[in-house]
Amino acid sequence: MDFKDGSVGIVQPQRFRCEQPITLQCRKTLPHYELIFETYGTLNAAKTNAVLVCHALSGHHHAAGYHSAEDKRPGWWDACIGPGKAIDTNRFFVVSLNNLGGCHGSTGPTSINPDTNKPYGPDFPIMTVKDWVNSQHALMLHLGIPHWSAVVGGSLGGMQAMQWAMDFPDLVRNAVVIAAAPKLSAQNIAFNEVARKAILSDPDFCEGHYYEHNKYPKIGLSLARMLGHITYLSDAAMREKFGRELRNGAISFDFNVEFQVESYLNYQGEVFSKNFDANTYLLMTRALDYFDPAQDYDHDLRKALAQAKARFLVLSFTTDWRFSPERSREIVEALLAARKQVTYADIECPQGHDSFLLDVPRYINLFKAYMNSIQLDGGN
Amino acid sequence: MDFKDGSVGIVQPQRFRCEQPITLQCRKTLPHYELIFETYGTLNAAKTNAVLVCHALSGHHHAAGYHSAEDKRPGWWDACIGPGKAIDTNRFFVVSLNNLGGCHGSTGPTSINPDTNKPYGPDFPIMTVKDWVNSQHALMLHLGIPHWSAVVGGSLGGMQAMQWAMDFPDLVRNAVVIAAAPKLSAQNIAFNEVARKAILSDPDFCEGHYYEHNKYPKIGLSLARMLGHITYLSDAAMREKFGRELRNGAISFDFNVEFQVESYLNYQGEVFSKNFDANTYLLMTRALDYFDPAQDYDHDLRKALAQAKARFLVLSFTTDWRFSPERSREIVEALLAARKQVTYADIECPQGHDSFLLDVPRYINLFKAYMNSIQLDGGN
Repeated sequence: MDFKDGSVGIVQPQRFRCEQPITLQCRKTLPHYELIFETYGTLNAAKTNAVLVCHALSGHHHAAGYHSAEDKRPGWWDACIGPGKAIDTNRFFVVSLNNLGGCHGSTGPTSINPDTNKPYGPDFPIMTVKDWVNSQHALMLHLGIPHWSAVVGGSLGGMQAMQWAMDFPDLVRNAVVIAAAPKLSAQNIAFNEVARKAILSDPDFCEGHYYEHNKYPKIGLSLARMLGHITYLSDAAMREKFGRELRNGAISFDFNVEFQVESYLNYQGEVFSKNFDANTYLLMTRALDYFDPAQDYDHDLRKALAQAKARFLVLSFTTDWRFSPERSREIVEALLAARKQVTYADIECPQGHDSFLLDVPRYINLFKAYMNSIQLDGGN
Repeated sequence: MDFKDGSVGIVQPQRFRCEQPITLQCRKTLPHYELIFETYGTLNAAKTNAVLVCHALSGHHHAAGYHSAEDKRPGWWDACIGPGKAIDTNRFFVVSLNNLGGCHGSTGPTSINPDTNKPYGPDFPIMTVKDWVNSQHALMLHLGIPHWSAVVGGSLGGMQAMQWAMDFPDLVRNAVVIAAAPKLSAQNIAFNEVARKAILSDPDFCEGHYYEHNKYPKIGLSLARMLGHITYLSDAAMREKFGRELRNGAISFDFNVEFQVESYLNYQGEVFSKNFDANTYLLMTRALDYFDPAQDYDHDLRKALAQAKARFLVLSFTTDWRFSPERSREIVEALLAARKQVTYADIECPQGHDSFLLDVPRYINLFKAYMNSIQLDGGN
């Protein structure tokens, strides 16, 4: 094995089958379900060092390490998880799962619906962040974890960390909310809607039953991903990466891919559309749209957060225009108004929303310092 | 007739058929072509009061007034053109045309290709801002206009005003460049590419020959427009207009249109896709991508603008994120470095890029003051 320092090395996904039914916010019930997950590090004897990592829109359980010695790409958050890293696996026992409704091994639209013996497809119930937290709670019980030392996530993952602190205040010591927002803006919803429309209107979507028709809405999903990708990068990052460079040096006066940035986006869309399920993508964008924890508290985020007992770390990135620093500050202000302990930093970084996935020293150092400050004695 | 004060009233489109061939930047030649245009106000005896209005991505010749007494919607820039308005038709003779390649009456992809006796479709040559300026110059000669008192436009229209000042320095006294940019950023190109991809990959696009197949890439064009529309509005304007309001009051847990903003975007996409030609949309986005007047001057905008003799008015809007105020300031700085006369204002306005079309008092007053300061004696 020749992995670089700081890697958790080779990891094996595990499965949890929950035989308890789960009733979802949409009022539908799944009689049982499976969650695929990975763990990194070791649960200490006192069981006080568990950290839950929640994934974002297109994430999954494989957050760190490699699946084999030949594996070239590590997990999606390998920049932050490993021995000596921000989430130090010498200290913490890290749990990372694929959310319910996902397409990487947990029960979702591609799973067989026991009622029909066909894939659920579009009949898989719509999930909310609250539903995910409930299913993650079942996994927690299964693993015998009495509380999370921290629940951590970026973007949609950060929303899950917030929801955990609100729904299970006694089970969360720290909530790390990175590049998130208290709810989506109209513009955020608008981008999601165009992405959904691209998928739904692809003739190969077959109203979501594409598996049975042996078809796949590749073009729609590819468009959705291209569009999403634009919102993950800052204008500055795109300029830095591609400028206005032409692929072949000169303008060709046609509608073929000409600029480097077009080529990059097309490639991203193409790859993604081969590796992700369209019904899951629809689900994930709706979960984002619906996230609005203040809704049941007179639209007052302070009231929604009043019940939380966790300490909070909130991080934003200066060039993130998907969930801008202002959105993180709304969370911070609500936490302060609710007299919660909160550490906040707006990290100067050119890469936009995607920064939370990257090895940005200023970010990693701050994140690490916070995680290292966490006491593992059962208190905060 | 019961039009409100300040309207130019009922107007009639006119046609100019140019029998001179035009050779385009793509090296193709159109042997002849037609431009549809409207005029408002009267050319004075000295012929010193002509103003050319250039349209943006989805614009056309009908910029002001009404086509009939029953017509409910005035031209697209009626907020700025009319008696007593910013471009005062009591003073100026305004010419507004549909650009070559357009789909509102000028020669474009829907026109019959004399070589095949079928619509040009995808074989219509790709146009550039420079080509448009050349065709507009032919119209100018046809109308017997010796110079433009001003060339005026917003967005892609502002780019044409800049190009005029560079290509025909002796024929332009003033260039009014509103909400424009000296060239597109990688992010701007990326949005255009997703829009194009949506159209090109619509099965009803038929490689651009949809007319012959009696089909139309309605879904692709609708997606392109929805996406464009997001970039025309500021996040704040969307919040103001829609917030996160649900259409039916409560979440329905499905993928139907639920939020007001989704409904609005879908409507916009639907209407647009019925009234615009997909091949023209592709052309227009490529003209935007290719606009880069500094390219032939060592990528130095100052050098490109050195030849201009016009006075410039440059306007931007604080919440425009499509072509942000920074992009306008790049133009201003290049003009100052080239020792040109330039007036610049960044107008505080919540509506984003679309502000240039709206009746925003601060904007209109400034625009009007500038236009009123123009001497009509043949000098500046």
